[in-house]
Amino acid sequence: MSGPLLDAVAQRVVLASEDDPLRLRGGKSLEHVEVVYETYGELSPARDNAVFICHALTGDAHAAGYRRGEDPHTAKPGWWDRMIGPGKPVDTDRFFVIAPNILGGCSGTTGPMSIDPATGEPRYLDFPLLHVADLVACHRRLLAHLEIETLYAAVGGSMGGMQVLQWVIDEPGRIERAVVVAASSRLTAENIAFSSVARQAIMADPEFHGGRYAEHGVVPRHGQKVARMMAHITYVSPQSLETRFDHQRDSVGDDQWRLEPDFEVEHYLQHQGETFLGRFDSLSYLYLTRLMDYFDPFADEPNAERLAGCRTRFQVTSFSSDWRFDTAQSMRLTEQLQAHGVDADHAEIHSPYGHDSFLLDPPGYLDRVATFLQ
Amino acid sequence: MSGPLLDAVAQRVVLASEDDPLRLRGGKSLEHVEVVYETYGELSPARDNAVFICHALTGDAHAAGYRRGEDPHTAKPGWWDRMIGPGKPVDTDRFFVIAPNILGGCSGTTGPMSIDPATGEPRYLDFPLLHVADLVACHRRLLAHLEIETLYAAVGGSMGGMQVLQWVIDEPGRIERAVVVAASSRLTAENIAFSSVARQAIMADPEFHGGRYAEHGVVPRHGQKVARMMAHITYVSPQSLETRFDHQRDSVGDDQWRLEPDFEVEHYLQHQGETFLGRFDSLSYLYLTRLMDYFDPFADEPNAERLAGCRTRFQVTSFSSDWRFDTAQSMRLTEQLQAHGVDADHAEIHSPYGHDSFLLDPPGYLDRVATFLQ
Repeated sequence: MSGPLLDAVAQRVVLASEDDPLRLRGGKSLEHVEVVYETYGELSPARDNAVFICHALTGDAHAAGYRRGEDPHTAKPGWWDRMIGPGKPVDTDRFFVIAPNILGGCSGTTGPMSIDPATGEPRYLDFPLLHVADLVACHRRLLAHLEIETLYAAVGGSMGGMQVLQWVIDEPGRIERAVVVAASSRLTAENIAFSSVARQAIMADPEFHGGRYAEHGVVPRHGQKVARMMAHITYVSPQSLETRFDHQRDSVGDDQWRLEPDFEVEHYLQHQGETFLGRFDSLSYLYLTRLMDYFDPFADEPNAERLAGCRTRFQVTSFSSDWRFDTAQSMRLTEQLQAHGVDADHAEIHSPYGHDSFLLDPPGYLDRVATFLQ
Repeated sequence: MSGPLLDAVAQRVVLASEDDPLRLRGGKSLEHVEVVYETYGELSPARDNAVFICHALTGDAHAAGYRRGEDPHTAKPGWWDRMIGPGKPVDTDRFFVIAPNILGGCSGTTGPMSIDPATGEPRYLDFPLLHVADLVACHRRLLAHLEIETLYAAVGGSMGGMQVLQWVIDEPGRIERAVVVAASSRLTAENIAFSSVARQAIMADPEFHGGRYAEHGVVPRHGQKVARMMAHITYVSPQSLETRFDHQRDSVGDDQWRLEPDFEVEHYLQHQGETFLGRFDSLSYLYLTRLMDYFDPFADEPNAERLAGCRTRFQVTSFSSDWRFDTAQSMRLTEQLQAHGVDADHAEIHSPYGHDSFLLDPPGYLDRVATFLQ
C-alpha cells in the first residue's frame, strides 16, 4: 500500500452486541456499536508499528489518500492528508495507520442517527450522552479486533487530542507516543459559550422537532448553518480573515448596499454553512460538542493519578493564532501531565491560520511531528 | 435639574416632513422622521455648554437617570449613568446633555418598524438602508430644533463613536471636543463576519416572513436570540467569562449530563438572549449592524480632506481586553485623524471587561473622559 497515492478503503466492524455491550461512563450501555475505519500501510509481523488517528469534531474515517475510483485531480484527499502518507510525518511506508470514525459521529460509526437493531429506528435524543472515555473505549475495542496490543503512537488534533489524552489516562501502559495538537484538558468558559450558542441555534430551529427531524423529512438546516458559520469564525483567526477578505465586496456605490451577503467574507461563511449541511448531522453535532464541554480529566484526581509511572511520551503543540484552543490551554495540559511525572514537551508553532492550523502545514509543524515519530 | 438624581423625561419631535425630507446618503429620502430624545442639565444663556451623546447599537435615548416615577432602589438607571450625571464626567451640573435615540432604531425614533404616515403601515424592509452619515444628519436636525449652533462635546462609544467621527468629518467646525470610545473607522473582516452570522440567524428564521413578521403577530425570536447570545460573547472577554463562570454547573455526576443548558455561562447567555427579545427589534438590528459594516469614512478621501484645519480635539480610548473593537482599530482611527492634521490623543485603558468596558468604569476610564471635558 506504499506509493505516491494512498488507496483508502472504508471497513466496517461490529464492536458491541447484546452479549457484550459497551458500558458507558455515564452508566448506560450500547448493545450495538458499529465502527467504520480506514487503515493505511501494513502491520509489521511484530504488530508494533500501529499509529492510531483520533479525529476532531466533524472529521471522519477518511483521514488520508483517495477513495478507490476517485480522481486525485478533482477529488479532495482525506482530511489529514498533509500529515499521513508515504514519507509524511505519519509515514505509511513505516506505520500501520488506523483511522476510525468516532462513536457518536455520523459517518458510519454508531451515533444518535444510526438504526438501533432492537427497534429498527434511530434513537435520536434517546441515544445516551457520551464521555470522551466512551470514544476511547470504542477505540480500544477496535484495537482488540485488529489484535494490536500496543500503539507506536496515538495522534489527534482538537477533540482528537482530547481522546489521546483520555486514552493514556485510561490505559497508561499502552501508547508509546502521544501527539496532542491544538487541544485542551478543560475548555474555557468562552469555548463552552460558543458551543452552547451553536446548540441553541440547532435545538430552537422549528425543524428540529425534538431531535426527530428525520421523521419529518427535514433537517434543522437554518440552525445548523448558523451554528457552523459562527463556529467557523472561531476556527480561523482575525488576521487570516483580514488578509484574505478585508472589505472586498460586490457592491460599488452607497446606493448598492444591501442586508444580504455582499462582502466576500459573508459569501465565504455562507458557503461554509451550506456545505456543512450536506456532510454532517445536527444530532452528532450536539452530542460531540457537548462531550467536549464536560471534558476535564484532571478534575478526577484518583483517575489522573494512574498516570504515575506512565512511560508515554507526550508531544503537545499549539498555534500562535488559535484563540479557540489557545496556547494557554496546551500549556496547562502539559503542566498537568508533568505534575504527574509524565514526559511532555510543549511548543507553540507560529501560524496565522487559527485553530484550523492543525489541519494545515505552518512552518515547523509537520517537521515537529515527524521528528517525534522517528 | 441638578441634584443626586437625574429626572429623565423623553421628548418627541418631528424633524422631517414631505416639504423638508431627510435626504439620505444612498440617494433616497425619508419624508417623515420623528426623534425621541432626553436632555439633562440646563442650556447656558450663551448656548455653549451642550454635550451630545451618541448611543451604540442597542442603546436608546434613556442614557442617564431614572424615568419619572421610577424607584431608584429597584429600577435600573439609563445605560450610561456612570458617565452622565451631577459631578460625573459628563457633568449635568455644568452641561446641557442631549441624548437621542438614533435613526433606524426601535425606541421611539423613526426606523423600519415605525408607522409610515403615508400608508399607515411600517415600511419593513422597504425602509431605506442607512449610512452613519444619515444618523448624523438626524442629529444635526435635532440640534437645529434646539437652536444650538456648536457643541461643547460629542461623546460616543462603539457605534456611538463612529457617529461622532462621521459628524466631525461632515461638519468640521461644529464640535469642540470629540470623545470616541471603543470604536472603529473601519471594521475588521472578523467583526463583519460576526454581524453577518447574526443577520443570517434572524433572516433565515422561518418567522422572519421577509421582514413582515409583525403582520403575522410573531417575531423571529429564535434567530434574534441566537444573534444576541453570540454577539454577547464578543462584547465581553474570555477572561471575564472565565473569572465569572469557569465550569460552574448544575449537574454533579456524569449521569446528570445534558444537552440543555447546564453550565452557568449557558444560563447567563440564555438570559441575555431572552431579555434582548423584549427590548429590541430584529429589523433595527439588521439595519444598524449593516451600516457599521459599510462604515469607512477615510476611504472617501475627498470627504476626509475636509478635516484639514479642523479644530476639534479628539480623545480616543480603547480597552485592553476588547477584541471586537480592539486597540488596533482605535490606533488606526487616531493615526488617520493625525494624518489629516487633527489633534487626537489615544490611550488604552486596562480592563478585563472586553468591549462592554465602555459602559463600565475600569480604573482610569471615567477620569480620563472627565479630564478631557473639564
